[in-house]
Amino acid sequence: MSRQGFYFYTHMLIQTVFKLNRTPVWLMRQAGRVLPEYRKVRESVKDFKALVKSPALAAEVTIQPVDLLGVDAAIIFSDILVIPEAMGLNYEMKESKGPYFPKTVHTYSDLKELHVSQGEELQYVLDAIALTKKGLNGRVPLIGFAGAPWTIFAYMIEGGGSKTFSKAKKMLYTQPELAHQLLDMITKSTINYLKAQIKAGVDLVQLFDSWAGILSPEQYDEFSMRYISMICDAIPEAPKTVFAKGAFFARQKMNDLKCEVIGLDWNMDITESRKMMPSKVLQGNLDPCALYGSFDSIKKETKHMLNLFKGHPHIANLGHGLYPDIEPDKVRCFIDTVKEHSG
Amino acid sequence: MSRQGFYFYTHMLIQTVFKLNRTPVWLMRQAGRVLPEYRKVRESVKDFKALVKSPALAAEVTIQPVDLLGVDAAIIFSDILVIPEAMGLNYEMKESKGPYFPKTVHTYSDLKELHVSQGEELQYVLDAIALTKKGLNGRVPLIGFAGAPWTIFAYMIEGGGSKTFSKAKKMLYTQPELAHQLLDMITKSTINYLKAQIKAGVDLVQLFDSWAGILSPEQYDEFSMRYISMICDAIPEAPKTVFAKGAFFARQKMNDLKCEVIGLDWNMDITESRKMMPSKVLQGNLDPCALYGSFDSIKKETKHMLNLFKGHPHIANLGHGLYPDIEPDKVRCFIDTVKEHSG
Repeated sequence: MSRQGFYFYTHMLIQTVFKLNRTPVWLMRQAGRVLPEYRKVRESVKDFKALVKSPALAAEVTIQPVDLLGVDAAIIFSDILVIPEAMGLNYEMKESKGPYFPKTVHTYSDLKELHVSQGEELQYVLDAIALTKKGLNGRVPLIGFAGAPWTIFAYMIEGGGSKTFSKAKKMLYTQPELAHQLLDMITKSTINYLKAQIKAGVDLVQLFDSWAGILSPEQYDEFSMRYISMICDAIPEAPKTVFAKGAFFARQKMNDLKCEVIGLDWNMDITESRKMMPSKVLQGNLDPCALYGSFDSIKKETKHMLNLFKGHPHIANLGHGLYPDIEPDKVRCFIDTVKEHSG
Repeated sequence: MSRQGFYFYTHMLIQTVFKLNRTPVWLMRQAGRVLPEYRKVRESVKDFKALVKSPALAAEVTIQPVDLLGVDAAIIFSDILVIPEAMGLNYEMKESKGPYFPKTVHTYSDLKELHVSQGEELQYVLDAIALTKKGLNGRVPLIGFAGAPWTIFAYMIEGGGSKTFSKAKKMLYTQPELAHQLLDMITKSTINYLKAQIKAGVDLVQLFDSWAGILSPEQYDEFSMRYISMICDAIPEAPKTVFAKGAFFARQKMNDLKCEVIGLDWNMDITESRKMMPSKVLQGNLDPCALYGSFDSIKKETKHMLNLFKGHPHIANLGHGLYPDIEPDKVRCFIDTVKEHSG
């Protein structure tokens, strides 16, 4: 595509999806603990998973940041780990400890107990999407999402969060064929799931590769990018964003993915990333900790970021999810600054 | 320096310090839980800190990997957090939980209770160095070390390990002057400490910036690189290695530091890093998880790494510390492969 063609295409994408003539803005984890209104809904149910599995409540908290913060997009309230569960591997969400899988995958016989999800186990997400679309009534687009296969795989082997994910990585060295078989099953399930989300009404989808940054560049190619690429190829029906936290080394190759938007974390230099990914809309990338600063400091940091993206199609966001102890007024300050200073 | 001059100088450095005509090899965390002989010594004392504070035992476990694994360098058994303690901020090392600081730094009055260490509080490390030098008897060089100021600062504010170090990062946005004052005190203490280590006998020193990867490129310049640079400038008396895990974005600038060696983590592409740091000896960078593989796989991965470094002055190591559950024979396989396949 010519440079001019690219600008036309990507600007059109932003205009078509967001219906805006300025930089759109939303925040990863915008629906969540940062809002007292969310915490109230959360306290009305037993646990996090009950909230994820209630379409009415999930829709309610998905819409909250649109009304309360003024973001330009909603993202469906859910969890990336619904996919392993749909494939047959249950998990628990332990308060302030994160996810925990009582059973994990280590052998071919463990693999045999899992199946490729056709999406029917995830009807509750699709119902939440339909309810959200109704509630949003066209005000802002709705983003669907899934975890990237490598990140989902990492949880299924490790059984929970980890600093090193050394059990998951060990399998890449000791049983690469088993790893590829599981990654393939996750990929197929994810494609079915994202297609169902789009059918249910989401306007674009985002893949989160949260644990991209623990792989070497060569392993990332083999065990992650390959499957992300399969997903992008299989879903022509909606625009796609790939956010691979820590995968700075893969940026050049990401420019060739069949996706429209690439998310940047706050470690990734904006000027350098623009050069590496000239064909992509870029999303991000303010340091989430910048929102701990004063209002003046938030305005300064946000304007600085907008300036560095100027001239490149850009969706403003943080470089990672919003931290739960940020004051809502600080979040509003970030959003308002984008709205006032971009065009 | 001309390209030829550089090769002469850096090769000379490896020959002078390591006295070898091939690629030297050692491993971060080589003295530690991976060796049953270490665990025996460790169990003979109350806790980790008692081991660090016993010069005779610290010297014993420092020398163990030279005898038992065949590494080309010893690194003094100690802890980066001895510096905050020497400055007046005590810490506890909780078994399998990591470090914990009962008091942390948040205000100027907290800062007033700390002092720049002249090194006298750390006599036990200097004694361990003297004993180790005696025990090594010139067989291999001894490496001294300290944490980089940003990493030490992060622990002093946060009070322990963290996924996000959001308290430490918050201070950079809310109280940057206070942050700089503390960083300056840590830097001065570290310079005194490293000079004392060199006087006590270490042959080269390494700075560990373990939490480099959580800062944005701009913040890294301001709150980390600046202080690393001050330390490098202040210590002309011995060769210096800087290992900043996750600071891929700072590599170009690291080429200008007054240090001889730069450590690479396993995320950093070797070919790209060689181009970015043509004036540095490079150290690293096998994925620590590669040592979970079979002997054949370890040989293959190690030879692949050596090939990628070929023609550039190189000290073989892992891209991070050795994981405690790796079998000693797998570590030996890595070491032996370097010895056999480099020259």
